[in-house]
Amino acid sequence: MEVLSSVNIPKRNEETHKGDYGKILLIGGNVNLGGAIMLAARACVFSGSGLITVATHPTNHAALHSRCPEAMVIDINDTKMLTKMIEHTDCILIGPGLGCDFKGNNAITFLLQNIQPHQTLIVDGDAITIFSKLKPDIPSCNVIFTPHPKEWERLSNIPVDEQTYERNREAVDQLGSTVILKKHGTEIYFKNSDYKLPIGTPAMATGGMGDTLAGMITSFIGQFDNFEEAVTSATYTHSYIGEELSSSMYVVPPSRLINEIPYVMKSLES
Amino acid sequence: MEVLSSVNIPKRNEETHKGDYGKILLIGGNVNLGGAIMLAARACVFSGSGLITVATHPTNHAALHSRCPEAMVIDINDTKMLTKMIEHTDCILIGPGLGCDFKGNNAITFLLQNIQPHQTLIVDGDAITIFSKLKPDIPSCNVIFTPHPKEWERLSNIPVDEQTYERNREAVDQLGSTVILKKHGTEIYFKNSDYKLPIGTPAMATGGMGDTLAGMITSFIGQFDNFEEAVTSATYTHSYIGEELSSSMYVVPPSRLINEIPYVMKSLES
Amino acid sequence: MEVLSSVNIPKRNEETHKGDYGKILLIGGNVNLGGAIMLAARACVFSGSGLITVATHPTNHAALHSRCPEAMVIDINDTKMLTKMIEHTDCILIGPGLGCDFKGNNAITFLLQNIQPHQTLIVDGDAITIFSKLKPDIPSCNVIFTPHPKEWERLSNIPVDEQTYERNREAVDQLGSTVILKKHGTEIYFKNSDYKLPIGTPAMATGGMGDTLAGMITSFIGQFDNFEEAVTSATYTHSYIGEELSSSMYVVPPSRLINEIPYVMKSLES
Amino acid sequence: MEVLSSVNIPKRNEETHKGDYGKILLIGGNVNLGGAIMLAARACVFSGSGLITVATHPTNHAALHSRCPEAMVIDINDTKMLTKMIEHTDCILIGPGLGCDFKGNNAITFLLQNIQPHQTLIVDGDAITIFSKLKPDIPSCNVIFTPHPKEWERLSNIPVDEQTYERNREAVDQLGSTVILKKHGTEIYFKNSDYKLPIGTPAMATGGMGDTLAGMITSFIGQFDNFEEAVTSATYTHSYIGEELSSSMYVVPPSRLINEIPYVMKSLES
Repeated sequence: MEVLSSVNIPKRNEETHKGDYGKILLIGGNVNLGGAIMLAARACVFSGSGLITVATHPTNHAALHSRCPEAMVIDINDTKMLTKMIEHTDCILIGPGLGCDFKGNNAITFLLQNIQPHQTLIVDGDAITIFSKLKPDIPSCNVIFTPHPKEWERLSNIPVDEQTYERNREAVDQLGSTVILKKHGTEIYFKNSDYKLPIGTPAMATGGMGDTLAGMITSFIGQFDNFEEAVTSATYTHSYIGEELSSSMYVVPPSRLINEIPYVMKSLES
Repeated sequence: MEVLSSVNIPKRNEETHKGDYGKILLIGGNVNLGGAIMLAARACVFSGSGLITVATHPTNHAALHSRCPEAMVIDINDTKMLTKMIEHTDCILIGPGLGCDFKGNNAITFLLQNIQPHQTLIVDGDAITIFSKLKPDIPSCNVIFTPHPKEWERLSNIPVDEQTYERNREAVDQLGSTVILKKHGTEIYFKNSDYKLPIGTPAMATGGMGDTLAGMITSFIGQFDNFEEAVTSATYTHSYIGEELSSSMYVVPPSRLINEIPYVMKSLES
Repeated sequence: MEVLSSVNIPKRNEETHKGDYGKILLIGGNVNLGGAIMLAARACVFSGSGLITVATHPTNHAALHSRCPEAMVIDINDTKMLTKMIEHTDCILIGPGLGCDFKGNNAITFLLQNIQPHQTLIVDGDAITIFSKLKPDIPSCNVIFTPHPKEWERLSNIPVDEQTYERNREAVDQLGSTVILKKHGTEIYFKNSDYKLPIGTPAMATGGMGDTLAGMITSFIGQFDNFEEAVTSATYTHSYIGEELSSSMYVVPPSRLINEIPYVMKSLES
Repeated sequence: MEVLSSVNIPKRNEETHKGDYGKILLIGGNVNLGGAIMLAARACVFSGSGLITVATHPTNHAALHSRCPEAMVIDINDTKMLTKMIEHTDCILIGPGLGCDFKGNNAITFLLQNIQPHQTLIVDGDAITIFSKLKPDIPSCNVIFTPHPKEWERLSNIPVDEQTYERNREAVDQLGSTVILKKHGTEIYFKNSDYKLPIGTPAMATGGMGDTLAGMITSFIGQFDNFEEAVTSATYTHSYIGEELSSSMYVVPPSRLINEIPYVMKSLES
């Protein structure tokens, strides 16, 4: 694996508008786990997405707007509205706080029926667990899975302590999707290349950190033309901020990491 | 067009009270797009408006108060209350997060029936789209439209790539209102003069930035005697803050731009 | 009138607990004006009150907790609970965002039936207007009114432009309560003395600033033994913070003024 | 009693994930007192807990997520969900904002029927008062009570002014649990040792400060192997931050103390 020792974030062109920076749809947040999708949404805003819609349970709408007025919201159960939003979107994230019950299943099934080949799908958290159980056909669009080792075990059938590079690489090839394996020394597997992060810190081992990364990846893909660079840049930037903050913080609350995104992206701008 | 290279913000007189700084009514925010009107409201507060009322869908009230306790709220569907508020207001903004469906139409129709000649009306976002479709008589009061190029196309029938100064100027003259055309190098068209902004940055190309500008314009008009100076000052200040922040931020989240308004207004005070 | 050129805030004794710093009840906030009581509540917390309960309309509870988790909430319409809270309270503020309709009337009437001689009552905002109309007997406890000039006109029948020291002093004597007349050069009238503030700034002329002051006064009275010093200290500290912030801010949003209270109180500690 | 003059917070191991830093359940927050459990939850997040679930009244869910998206929420009245959560938890805090009525009683009774010997239970605030009345059998797991002197009087039957070291020590031995007696010079009683804090400040005498401490203790126990060190570290860190902030703040709002936790934990890291 190549060690990912730096990234470059593309400079924005002067003559652009918000429509040039991605139409994003985030699907997740049930009655109990709403905070996850709020973190993902705010990570998108602070990463630079132009237009963000969040499909979540109505009990989450007030808190979402309170934390993140830049995003739009729809009811995750309003299939008519959801169909319309899926149609007009570039990048779709499903999973943060989705829940693993039948409602989560339904949301994924519904999405897979409506997603189009030119779109990108990011599958995170509970959605990975559901994918592992339902084993649906992977859609023909660009698909990224962002599992931690236990979720990767479910998806690949490789037990956590047998997750070597060779076995992971083989499983990814079989899956045919991009995989970001989140752990100490996060690994990114593309079709023809793979990278390992030399940065990261146990101060980031906290609830909501994965939802934040998922939001950043979705946002970067929506903004940047080069898919692989978008994925590596987002993952690197996330760990980079965490490591920077951990020099003065024992633990890095995800909401604080998000605050730093625009500053660190600027410092990584080429 | 004159290049708008600086503005002066009037110093407040000592012997004044909140009633001297504008009675503002903001109309917008449906079930899905509530964040837009929250951004506009907080931009008003941080720009110095004395009294701000927000007419929005009740699902937005908790989040609005959570972010912006300085504003009052009413139910956008409570026509009795809305009538009363319109009557007691100096400046009315309609549009942020209003939605383009029949409810949005109704809100505009209702407002146009009740607005009075001495008031100022700012038409933003979805309200511009509705105006373009309904083609109502422009009310006899001071009216400002704040379109981005696509919205201006709808309103003026000039395709985006044919929006030259000459054609815009002609269309504005025909419309008889003030037009702020938001883009790289924002243009401001008054009846007898027009200005071009030499500042601005693609870091401001993000959802909610227009709602924030609309709130600032409304607030400045409510505070300052000179209408044209109020409009140019607000527009300039908005871009100026964005440009300043973009030296350290890759993208400028609207909620962060708002935080800076009082400081930058002070620095521009004459 | 004596010019109030400085104040001293008493140092806290080591062997004390939250019960020593006042049991406060704040009554206000209807469906439209909830933000006012939220500002008052947070001003209490940041001024050092030990125990704060807010009686407000249930639609305000989520936003109140979101901004100010340190306060407790009750439903303003739950008279059983309200009776119990009034009984166990030292200081009661009524008015911010109360509304001037029959519900506001009822809240005041109910409070006046239950208030006890050893308590202190602060009457602010809409509650002053209702007092002016209902003309109830002033309760035998310590009572403070915090009108701006128009509210003082309603309460005293002195037109705004005839509010001279002599006429104000006479009206206060007749009223038998403490009056804080909020304006450029705020005036404080006690039974046997009166003060004029040499500080203050038009940057404070903004919605919610009076609610913030009302919260501070209530909190200071709950904490400090000397009633007159508590009132003058709170009023002075409020204007002092506003003036300090106005050196860098064109307008001082009340929520920002509140953030500074603990720091400025420390600097004024004797 | 030993004077607790310093603590060391263990460095995190590189190869760890959020599951290594404690599964926490917080139970509290009725319709009136929801802010207390929100403060405890945010204190947990900022102290480094990996997974936090809050069981509270549904009216508190929106504000909780608004302040603390890192936590999960469940309805405190959903016994099926609650049973499941208790089963999968390491550390349980009950009490902040629970209320002393029959619902609070029920929550405690239910918890005591379901708690397991390997878990740790922290009993705070209203839960202490209910324990004092119900006098249930103390469960066989590790139990900590965090009373202030009045609550300790209720639990131990020692009047506040007779709470000497000898009598407290005897009562703790009889109780068979750990007791943290919160006061000027907080005392910590373990089975075979006891400590007195030389730090603390009356600037911390404010509502919500105890809820914050309870959250920190719960979080530290969930993270650190050594039980006694976890308890002393949390208590010391809480007072240490309060004392630091009090050099510039007259009163320390609990929400501000929480912001500092990660920084101070880093500075105390060994």
